[in-house]
Amino acid sequence: MGLAVGVDVGGTKIAAGVVDESGVIIDQTRVPTPADDPKELRAKIAELAGELAGRHDVVAVGVGAAGFVNAERTALYFSAHVGWGTEPVTDILQDSLGMPVTLENDGNAAAWAEYVYGAGQGVPDQLMVAIGTGIGGGLLLGGEIYRGGHGVAGEIGHLGLVPQGRLCECGRHGCFEEYASGSSLQRMAREAAADGSAPALLAAAGGDPTAVTGAQVTELAEAGEAEAIELFDKLAEPLGIGISTLVSILDPTVVVLGGGVSEAGELLLGPTRAAVERELSGRGRRPSPELRLAALGNDAGLIGAADLARRATS
Amino acid sequence: MGLAVGVDVGGTKIAAGVVDESGVIIDQTRVPTPADDPKELRAKIAELAGELAGRHDVVAVGVGAAGFVNAERTALYFSAHVGWGTEPVTDILQDSLGMPVTLENDGNAAAWAEYVYGAGQGVPDQLMVAIGTGIGGGLLLGGEIYRGGHGVAGEIGHLGLVPQGRLCECGRHGCFEEYASGSSLQRMAREAAADGSAPALLAAAGGDPTAVTGAQVTELAEAGEAEAIELFDKLAEPLGIGISTLVSILDPTVVVLGGGVSEAGELLLGPTRAAVERELSGRGRRPSPELRLAALGNDAGLIGAADLARRATS
Repeated sequence: MGLAVGVDVGGTKIAAGVVDESGVIIDQTRVPTPADDPKELRAKIAELAGELAGRHDVVAVGVGAAGFVNAERTALYFSAHVGWGTEPVTDILQDSLGMPVTLENDGNAAAWAEYVYGAGQGVPDQLMVAIGTGIGGGLLLGGEIYRGGHGVAGEIGHLGLVPQGRLCECGRHGCFEEYASGSSLQRMAREAAADGSAPALLAAAGGDPTAVTGAQVTELAEAGEAEAIELFDKLAEPLGIGISTLVSILDPTVVVLGGGVSEAGELLLGPTRAAVERELSGRGRRPSPELRLAALGNDAGLIGAADLARRATS
Repeated sequence: MGLAVGVDVGGTKIAAGVVDESGVIIDQTRVPTPADDPKELRAKIAELAGELAGRHDVVAVGVGAAGFVNAERTALYFSAHVGWGTEPVTDILQDSLGMPVTLENDGNAAAWAEYVYGAGQGVPDQLMVAIGTGIGGGLLLGGEIYRGGHGVAGEIGHLGLVPQGRLCECGRHGCFEEYASGSSLQRMAREAAADGSAPALLAAAGGDPTAVTGAQVTELAEAGEAEAIELFDKLAEPLGIGISTLVSILDPTVVVLGGGVSEAGELLLGPTRAAVERELSGRGRRPSPELRLAALGNDAGLIGAADLARRATS
């Protein structure tokens, strides 16, 4: 077993770390993502992983990617925010690093980490709902990541929430993440700041409604500001509808709420739990899932990618 | 191995049959469902199964039930249309019949039958979408029925299609089956007959719009009547949105359309396929599932229940 490197490739930054067998990051580094050049992207991943492998006795490298990973987990079909190309990423990185390299969707990697080390330890049937800029996800079914027939299961941000609704970057209308993501929270907050219903938020953003951020909403809500708390209540409604859809289809024992927005803790969890209970099909006549906050925060993807890579070598 | 009895318990009738190892029903019988008395229901199931077992050399009995089957598959949490009680159905039937009895959700049983003998043979990752009075379903993931954390996965008729939409019998608003089921088709047909836009349907129903049935829509559409064909096109829209949600979450290789409405064949399949292609998240940049018509029709549940029972004994 031993140590493994995890590399989490997001739209804006690459985070890499050395993860030990108990899921702890013992060394890490990060750089901006070269998002437009697949060759440069691979070079950067190899550089970060190589640097960490040079400092530690590492057995494998796991890469987590925001995008549609193919069924063989060697390349990406497509990523909305990062130019990966369609080259076999794992082969190229393996040649360059001289050790085994695995590739995993970042939502799957995060779900795996929460299952092994985090909020869902030992629960074989659970869902990760990662609420960040969009909504990512991972399906942990029967104690394994479920990847679907072509490798791209778990794109829960794109379940249809509103027919003929808002246009999503994925090309369809009305996706879940257009209503219940961190971007949605920010949009609602800016609208409230602009229409006069959120004076404290407007003040926090220096009087410019277009400068309001999700982090400011969390901060003011934590300070007890009603207008900010209300925005979480509002976000919880579509979140509850989307999660209840997932529960009708997959019947998880636990739903883990992760991603940046989940850092608001009980402010998000409380109203979301209430909304899911309200929206659940057959409520009261079937067991309900338990909603929990993620334990590993933004490190989950990195930790999960490393752990999956280490396991693949044993 | 040998023969097994399958019993499909629906809201209006119980169908029982003896199924051989190639999935063929060699003997069968049916009676109306005693839907209000759990004890009478169990007695009727035992009577039918016992009668068939008396005529054939049967190794096991499999019961398919429209409802929420518990994780142990011994009883039902709840059924909307049939009073099952919460007694351990399998234990009671086993005692009475003197042979192994298994219990399965009817959508799961149908999905299994299509996987083993029907339209999805040999495809490990597939979904059954059974379009009847409601919308039932079954998840075949990695070559196995996926039942979730509490036994009730696959309730796809209750994914949320329209926020704050039509009230469903399950207690929530806007469920898939309120828009894309056989009942929805009938409702749309009656509305069209009433508002003058479907004169041929109105005539077929003897001038009474409230007497129009889904079967009449199918009949007229098959005869080339534009007003009836249009109703299938209209039904395909919500059906496409719901299926695209399932595909985003589960990424199946094949989606099997079953249930009574699927007897309309290409009239349903064609526009549904087009709607799914239009509504698919990331379309053109990821592999799409193949949509197929079910091969076993209304016998799928019975055949699947029997096959699962036989396998459980070996």
